[in-house]
Amino acid sequence: MTIAVEVPSSSATTRIANALLAAIEPGESSGCPPLLAAAIRDAVFPGGARVRPRLVLAVAQACGDDCPSITDATAASIELLHCASLVHDDMPCFDAAPTRRGKPAVHVAFGERLALLAGDAMIVLAFEALAGACAPAPERLARLLRIIGGGVGTSGGIVAGQAWECESTAVLSTYQRAKTGALFAAATMAGAAAAGVAATQPWAALGARIGEAYQVADDILDVIGSAAALGKPTGRDAALGRLSAVQEFGLDGAVQTLKRLVREAVESIPDCAGADMLRAVILAQAQDHIPNDMLQAA
Amino acid sequence: MTIAVEVPSSSATTRIANALLAAIEPGESSGCPPLLAAAIRDAVFPGGARVRPRLVLAVAQACGDDCPSITDATAASIELLHCASLVHDDMPCFDAAPTRRGKPAVHVAFGERLALLAGDAMIVLAFEALAGACAPAPERLARLLRIIGGGVGTSGGIVAGQAWECESTAVLSTYQRAKTGALFAAATMAGAAAAGVAATQPWAALGARIGEAYQVADDILDVIGSAAALGKPTGRDAALGRLSAVQEFGLDGAVQTLKRLVREAVESIPDCAGADMLRAVILAQAQDHIPNDMLQAA
Repeated sequence: MTIAVEVPSSSATTRIANALLAAIEPGESSGCPPLLAAAIRDAVFPGGARVRPRLVLAVAQACGDDCPSITDATAASIELLHCASLVHDDMPCFDAAPTRRGKPAVHVAFGERLALLAGDAMIVLAFEALAGACAPAPERLARLLRIIGGGVGTSGGIVAGQAWECESTAVLSTYQRAKTGALFAAATMAGAAAAGVAATQPWAALGARIGEAYQVADDILDVIGSAAALGKPTGRDAALGRLSAVQEFGLDGAVQTLKRLVREAVESIPDCAGADMLRAVILAQAQDHIPNDMLQAA
Repeated sequence: MTIAVEVPSSSATTRIANALLAAIEPGESSGCPPLLAAAIRDAVFPGGARVRPRLVLAVAQACGDDCPSITDATAASIELLHCASLVHDDMPCFDAAPTRRGKPAVHVAFGERLALLAGDAMIVLAFEALAGACAPAPERLARLLRIIGGGVGTSGGIVAGQAWECESTAVLSTYQRAKTGALFAAATMAGAAAAGVAATQPWAALGARIGEAYQVADDILDVIGSAAALGKPTGRDAALGRLSAVQEFGLDGAVQTLKRLVREAVESIPDCAGADMLRAVILAQAQDHIPNDMLQAA
């Protein structure tokens, strides 16, 4: 099957940047200490690949995107929570990462205290953004809060994922599902909920598969990538003794797993008006973020 | 004027404990790493004076408390955010406090990483609690989110207050309003909003005054209190070079300020069915938490 659709990647880039600005600017009033505002900007801009908010937009568009301001706030909320987790994860008590996205990590540029507070603040801003945006369809707010809370919370969300690193034993799939997969699943479910879909559970599998694929790709790049290309140090999993797909399955096994996950993701897309467009967006994003030779290898 | 009303303090204690359990238990499913769950419990139970959730309950009751489940979730949300700020504030990069509420601080008992994550998790749980509780009156959810977000956020909330400690200059009143007053103002406004009051702004002054009074009392106790009675170290403001009402006004001036603030708080209560009861609750709480000789001195 050949699908001829335009992938709206550059408009998505602009839309996400504007949504993030709209989410953080209300918090930058005169009541905001200047260094805190600067630390938050530093954590959010310039961004990484913005994979999660792109996924929110793509799913919302596939479902009609009938209220773009809710979609935008949802995309910003999920990206703010992702950025918050990176800021806290980079801190000395966790990964002690000196750089992130090719520049000094927030705790290096602004100190540990402002890194701690900027992360806290971004969690609050993420939920405030939703509250502000849902006025045109208030019944969507509780649904979005529950979905996004599930993606970051104690019960299988990002916080749980990071906390498995503090336990003496953890199951790789549980750890990765929480640390990465849960926010991806939240992104697809929230994208649908933002567009007014009430039954969002069928959208969970798509996000979960993409999240797993992304985590496996990240594990592979941590072994074979260069720090310059990634904008962050490599070899951290082995150095920190962290769970990793490469450690568990070997490099070839990890690449096979990655290819299977991308295939399963595309096959899991529920019926919706924009299903073909969504398939194209996801395949294009997979090709953007996974080196071609990796997809062709093994 | 003599006011003869029963102050329902013991039932409030039970109600708040149950509300906090209801807010954190859904996050303790099998997907939650056990140490994270234990760190959150340790941060929340046993509590301190629960001043903020008591204030939520007292205001909601004065306004009719027509939907107790929303009031309970609001009280729990505000207390969880307060506890989260204590956990992060006690960490080595901030106050490096070894004890809190008479036992080892969370970062001492569970390590820095779990303290960081427990604080993050409690912020998320606070917002999730609201989403779950507002089903009977969904129009209250966005209002509560905005009020509570304002109490903790970057624009004059707790996070801003802590971040003023990272600036080279800060105004004492701005710092204290953000670090303490904002969440108290949020508590009174949210108490009213939980009971269905749409115009919550008139309730801000009550919380703000109580918050200022509480901060001034805390500053005084940091100078004249004993660590054993308070369950935390004293003399921290001077040791850490932090802004303090005693440092600014002297001890006598601080006590005078405290008495004025309690008087202004009681005078600021907006007209409502339970205004007399609310006055009695606030005066009783002031007497519970401020040593008598301090109120009579100066």
